[in-house]
Amino acid sequence: MEQPQQSAAPEAGKPPLRVGMVGYAFMGAAHSQGWRTAGRVFDLPRRPVLSAICGRDAAAVRAAADRHGWAAAETDWRALIARDDVDLVDICTPGDSHAEIALAALAAGKHVLCEKPLANTVEEAEAMTAAAEAAYGRGQLAMVGFNYRRVPATALARSMVAEGRLGTLRHVRVTYLQDWLVDPQFPLTWRLRKELAGSGALGDLGAHVVDLAQYLAGEQLAGVSALTETFVRQRPLPVGASSGLSTVESAGTGQVTVDDAAVFTGRFASGALASFEATRFATGRKNALRIELNGELGSLAFDLERLNELAYYDGTEPATRGGFRRILVTEPDHPYVDAWWPPGHGLGYEHTFIHQARDLVHAIAEGRPPRPSFADGLQVQRVLAAVEESAEKNSVYTPIAV
Amino acid sequence: MEQPQQSAAPEAGKPPLRVGMVGYAFMGAAHSQGWRTAGRVFDLPRRPVLSAICGRDAAAVRAAADRHGWAAAETDWRALIARDDVDLVDICTPGDSHAEIALAALAAGKHVLCEKPLANTVEEAEAMTAAAEAAYGRGQLAMVGFNYRRVPATALARSMVAEGRLGTLRHVRVTYLQDWLVDPQFPLTWRLRKELAGSGALGDLGAHVVDLAQYLAGEQLAGVSALTETFVRQRPLPVGASSGLSTVESAGTGQVTVDDAAVFTGRFASGALASFEATRFATGRKNALRIELNGELGSLAFDLERLNELAYYDGTEPATRGGFRRILVTEPDHPYVDAWWPPGHGLGYEHTFIHQARDLVHAIAEGRPPRPSFADGLQVQRVLAAVEESAEKNSVYTPIAV
Amino acid sequence: MEQPQQSAAPEAGKPPLRVGMVGYAFMGAAHSQGWRTAGRVFDLPRRPVLSAICGRDAAAVRAAADRHGWAAAETDWRALIARDDVDLVDICTPGDSHAEIALAALAAGKHVLCEKPLANTVEEAEAMTAAAEAAYGRGQLAMVGFNYRRVPATALARSMVAEGRLGTLRHVRVTYLQDWLVDPQFPLTWRLRKELAGSGALGDLGAHVVDLAQYLAGEQLAGVSALTETFVRQRPLPVGASSGLSTVESAGTGQVTVDDAAVFTGRFASGALASFEATRFATGRKNALRIELNGELGSLAFDLERLNELAYYDGTEPATRGGFRRILVTEPDHPYVDAWWPPGHGLGYEHTFIHQARDLVHAIAEGRPPRPSFADGLQVQRVLAAVEESAEKNSVYTPIAV
Amino acid sequence: MEQPQQSAAPEAGKPPLRVGMVGYAFMGAAHSQGWRTAGRVFDLPRRPVLSAICGRDAAAVRAAADRHGWAAAETDWRALIARDDVDLVDICTPGDSHAEIALAALAAGKHVLCEKPLANTVEEAEAMTAAAEAAYGRGQLAMVGFNYRRVPATALARSMVAEGRLGTLRHVRVTYLQDWLVDPQFPLTWRLRKELAGSGALGDLGAHVVDLAQYLAGEQLAGVSALTETFVRQRPLPVGASSGLSTVESAGTGQVTVDDAAVFTGRFASGALASFEATRFATGRKNALRIELNGELGSLAFDLERLNELAYYDGTEPATRGGFRRILVTEPDHPYVDAWWPPGHGLGYEHTFIHQARDLVHAIAEGRPPRPSFADGLQVQRVLAAVEESAEKNSVYTPIAV
Repeated sequence: MEQPQQSAAPEAGKPPLRVGMVGYAFMGAAHSQGWRTAGRVFDLPRRPVLSAICGRDAAAVRAAADRHGWAAAETDWRALIARDDVDLVDICTPGDSHAEIALAALAAGKHVLCEKPLANTVEEAEAMTAAAEAAYGRGQLAMVGFNYRRVPATALARSMVAEGRLGTLRHVRVTYLQDWLVDPQFPLTWRLRKELAGSGALGDLGAHVVDLAQYLAGEQLAGVSALTETFVRQRPLPVGASSGLSTVESAGTGQVTVDDAAVFTGRFASGALASFEATRFATGRKNALRIELNGELGSLAFDLERLNELAYYDGTEPATRGGFRRILVTEPDHPYVDAWWPPGHGLGYEHTFIHQARDLVHAIAEGRPPRPSFADGLQVQRVLAAVEESAEKNSVYTPIAV
Repeated sequence: MEQPQQSAAPEAGKPPLRVGMVGYAFMGAAHSQGWRTAGRVFDLPRRPVLSAICGRDAAAVRAAADRHGWAAAETDWRALIARDDVDLVDICTPGDSHAEIALAALAAGKHVLCEKPLANTVEEAEAMTAAAEAAYGRGQLAMVGFNYRRVPATALARSMVAEGRLGTLRHVRVTYLQDWLVDPQFPLTWRLRKELAGSGALGDLGAHVVDLAQYLAGEQLAGVSALTETFVRQRPLPVGASSGLSTVESAGTGQVTVDDAAVFTGRFASGALASFEATRFATGRKNALRIELNGELGSLAFDLERLNELAYYDGTEPATRGGFRRILVTEPDHPYVDAWWPPGHGLGYEHTFIHQARDLVHAIAEGRPPRPSFADGLQVQRVLAAVEESAEKNSVYTPIAV
Repeated sequence: MEQPQQSAAPEAGKPPLRVGMVGYAFMGAAHSQGWRTAGRVFDLPRRPVLSAICGRDAAAVRAAADRHGWAAAETDWRALIARDDVDLVDICTPGDSHAEIALAALAAGKHVLCEKPLANTVEEAEAMTAAAEAAYGRGQLAMVGFNYRRVPATALARSMVAEGRLGTLRHVRVTYLQDWLVDPQFPLTWRLRKELAGSGALGDLGAHVVDLAQYLAGEQLAGVSALTETFVRQRPLPVGASSGLSTVESAGTGQVTVDDAAVFTGRFASGALASFEATRFATGRKNALRIELNGELGSLAFDLERLNELAYYDGTEPATRGGFRRILVTEPDHPYVDAWWPPGHGLGYEHTFIHQARDLVHAIAEGRPPRPSFADGLQVQRVLAAVEESAEKNSVYTPIAV
Repeated sequence: MEQPQQSAAPEAGKPPLRVGMVGYAFMGAAHSQGWRTAGRVFDLPRRPVLSAICGRDAAAVRAAADRHGWAAAETDWRALIARDDVDLVDICTPGDSHAEIALAALAAGKHVLCEKPLANTVEEAEAMTAAAEAAYGRGQLAMVGFNYRRVPATALARSMVAEGRLGTLRHVRVTYLQDWLVDPQFPLTWRLRKELAGSGALGDLGAHVVDLAQYLAGEQLAGVSALTETFVRQRPLPVGASSGLSTVESAGTGQVTVDDAAVFTGRFASGALASFEATRFATGRKNALRIELNGELGSLAFDLERLNELAYYDGTEPATRGGFRRILVTEPDHPYVDAWWPPGHGLGYEHTFIHQARDLVHAIAEGRPPRPSFADGLQVQRVLAAVEESAEKNSVYTPIAV
């Protein structure tokens, strides 16, 4: 194939954007890849520099720094924030520490990228949003890490909806199915403890799909009706487990204090109906985030397990020749793709983090508010809170607070 | 391929089962195909005879009789029931007449096959069930036409669930998506009028998927939480339209009095979570009845648009070699298939009616109660009533009456 | 769904078309279904009557007559042809008897439908074609049973090619994959004996795909280069096996005298490249007839295992929004479909025989030559002969005789 | 998901492996990504260092160095090879310069990674292989860049074949379909000129699939029979185009001197039949490398457009429960995957280059010959030469030289 990838612009002379990251587990690895690669592929206005990484276990964080290419390692996130060589704080810890770290970072004059969900409670998210808005006045930017907006196929879907290709929206149906908790002997990790994770499948998977559904629809949910369930209520305690900032050492069994699954329906502001399902008990489904939007003029469907594809039905064509088409979202004109490979040479999961870094660098360089903003993250949090409230109140339809 | 289809048993000497059918539209055509073909393919204990067909328009019903191969035509269903050459009354009319015809047929000593939904109200369905149970004591059988139980793939799925291949059930998710109402100029046919159809997508599509979900799961729903919606509330009146027994002649527009779409969640008796969606507004989806069941040991998935296939994930295998397998349900050992074609030579929609006729003839010959029984139809009706009640009561979780 | 299927035209007053069929195994069952059903679904100018069926085993053919609905049974095909109540002779025997029966039937003034392949040799096919052309002058019609032209999706594909949607053709690639010979213990049935079957996968599967490829392309192959192989050369003899007209009783093993698989490439008259594969050794592939055509303006793809679908790529659209679309070939405007069910309610394998009967009845009533004609069947035979010749001559490119 | 990605081993103290790369277009970008990332994800015995990159256009290569992270830039490949800080020369130029550069690099004591095809002629490939074998005795390693062996799904397929899961191989069918030449106005780039590219689709795409087919089969082709075609023989000359080392500036049209497409059949040493197709004219197919292997006990199928999946049919299971399963090749036990993301979080095209770098670093550190070796590349070249010879000689079956 005939597609030279290089472009004229070198990186060297660009002003740096110096990043400090808190957390070095799964998300830490993914964000590292994002910061390290974005400037090698995209023509960025500022050059990301991996200044320092932070974790509580000194040896582990030192190893992570070496592995992922961070110049320095810290064991106290306050020290990380205080560093002169950090312009942006990237928060990859469990949800219970998001608010405290983000507020401190914003107070210290740093830009912030915070993993989703924005916080474990609406109250925390409100405080973070207020702080972010105040900081924006001081030239600081804050973004929440809903990385699934950065898949070329979802970005394409968004632009097709915005072009009016679906017309009046009628249905949005979303599932996010995983199966890693099916085995009742899977241990009680931090993600299964409410005090650390806030909620279970709802906050982990549901947050993603609520954001993605609203992003693609271009409108917000007005209310929800929900059922949640914890199928396996006791699990073995992990032995010496460590996952990023949290460590649990114990034996015996413990109580699962979060949901294993949530199913909920809702209405969008426009009257479109929505259905959601988030679960860690869908045997055989590994990462099946699937979303379909049906509008009066057309439909779109996406499956994260086949993330280089977008299905599109053009209802304005005669049905005789129509059908869901599988768009391979690998053309140079597709979002993010011109920096990558020729048609048909697909991207993977981690590219969402590279694109996220790219978009944030641009926003910072241009001083415009990045999306999804903390306000977007807060709104998702309010949806999740309404889901939990509905589930507690016998599924009664529960409006989303505004 | 080397698969002779004939078998030794001729039809000629068998006792007849003489059928009288009410209605000759879509379902009438499908049932005719079923009665006409079942004995030509399967080795049946009784020989179906297409005695008489009934409709209100004399010319039309006469033409239908000739077309579909019925010996006689009637314009009054009471006359049909009264005929000596009718052993079984097959009811293919809109739901508002099911109860009256079925009760009369049972009172007249006939077997009854009644299209779904069993009735438009729980009360009617209760009366029909009581009558069917009384009639069973007199040797008469009554069945409701949930034909999607007769797809080889769904029948295979049922047997795999019954074998325990899924283990404890965790999730059932079902959609039944069509798009024929997307155009707001589509006319106000009988299916959009509550007094004839009872309900909209809910009764038409929802009844199918509620029955199928409970059949495959092998257990009943305990309660539901629902949203329903009518997206297009005024539609043009049809001009001179006739559809089976009902005729509407008019102009101008009229009120749509049924739901266009219903989304609902629920719990099965075992605690498994369920989600349902039935709609006629899913642009591009023509007949997308999709059902997936996730259990502790495995999963099954089916899509009516690819009805010769069943997807199965065996969770007892190592994940390294596992995956959803696409079973082509065309092997001689698969349900119903040995009477048909060699592997890979698929069946179609109408075969469900042939299989339905086959199963009912066997049940009648053997004197055992056919499934789905009127009691099964009544229970589905109760689920639909709970869905409507929940939708009216702000989605509150509504138990299914027992 | 709102789709009454009845039409005004009754069958009763129509002139009959009286059919006599030779053979009652797999193809006999399929053709019976076609003759019995065509007039019940389509509005035909003549009414098919199942007059008599013929086979050598008197008891078996009598049972087949009863089962499939034939009025009479014969054990001598000459007697069948001689019957006054037979207007058309339908030949469903193995290929070695096609020529003799067809020639006699044509000589006796009957119309003829002959299963594919037309004959076991080019010489026989030439004689049959000459006889058919002479008979056409006497008002008799002759057709060969390439039923895969009658799938709605392939008929749609043909019309799309004829509309010019593909532009200049570049590639045709076809596979017909089955796996029923993988087991070396599968017995030596008539299909594995050259004297009865003529050839193996080539004549059985290859004939289908050569015809279908040329039909869809709208042009003929100019030459081929081929490899054939018999993987398992000795097989157990069947015990008391009977398949239609041929019976083998024996023990021990025998020689497989036909090919198990054939792969060949070729050039179309226009210069397009073709590749073909026909095999009975593709483990897991049950009836995978797959064909794809690539033209300068677009592409089409079809898979018989999903026969209600046609994939279409419109190359005139911007690649950014383009993709292979899955047309569900179940719309009323699609070929054959208006007589059947609403959108999304698919057809099966046997419908090809119903459609074949429909098309032949129309041709006979209208006196126009049916396609595929015996000349078409002869041309396919010439392609197969060139394949065999190339395979024998070290794969050298072998032009198709004209 | 609960999958910390960090591991204990830091990179810092490891001995470096200093890379010098020639070429900076498409392949240069991909290889850069490989060298830059491998040590960040995998625990490597040596630390890749991006020492210097080489191209003829000084400004462009300087920009590429900055973009991709190479410490130095050279404009003469001889200078690059001569550098003390280069241990390994990575050749990413068009095929006409592979031999000269590789021979010089080996003579200079460097390890070599050479893009595929190994060379434009068998003679060059023979010289390179001889040089590589001699160099191996001096501790130098040489590998050819058939990166599609490094997709987790193809590596898994290889291991499943090696485990004996397919049993005796019967069929291998492979297509590599692209469509970027469909437009006759696409310009005459270096890839369409025999003197630079050696051949067209055959050398570019065919080389990949011949290597992959033999790798997966675990055996070599014995002979081939081929057709090739150049559909569009005149194309506009590119204006000021530059692609890596080659630059063409001109106007008017020029002659396409390579094949646009090649179809060929063949036999493997074991007797299995093979079919191949490589084309740049398959409208709508962007990068459709598809391979299927059928063996007596099972089958495997792979599609590069869905590279995180492998289809597997286990023929040892009862057909009633069997079917092609879609293995999501994203489990920690799958090849290469444990260093990446949780199940269902897929990889992309460029990961093949990261894995290639990983494997080569291990081979170098351990002193064992890397695969695919130059000898493997030579053998592929011999297959391609036989294809060309057969195409010239009227498709006659042409044995592969040994």
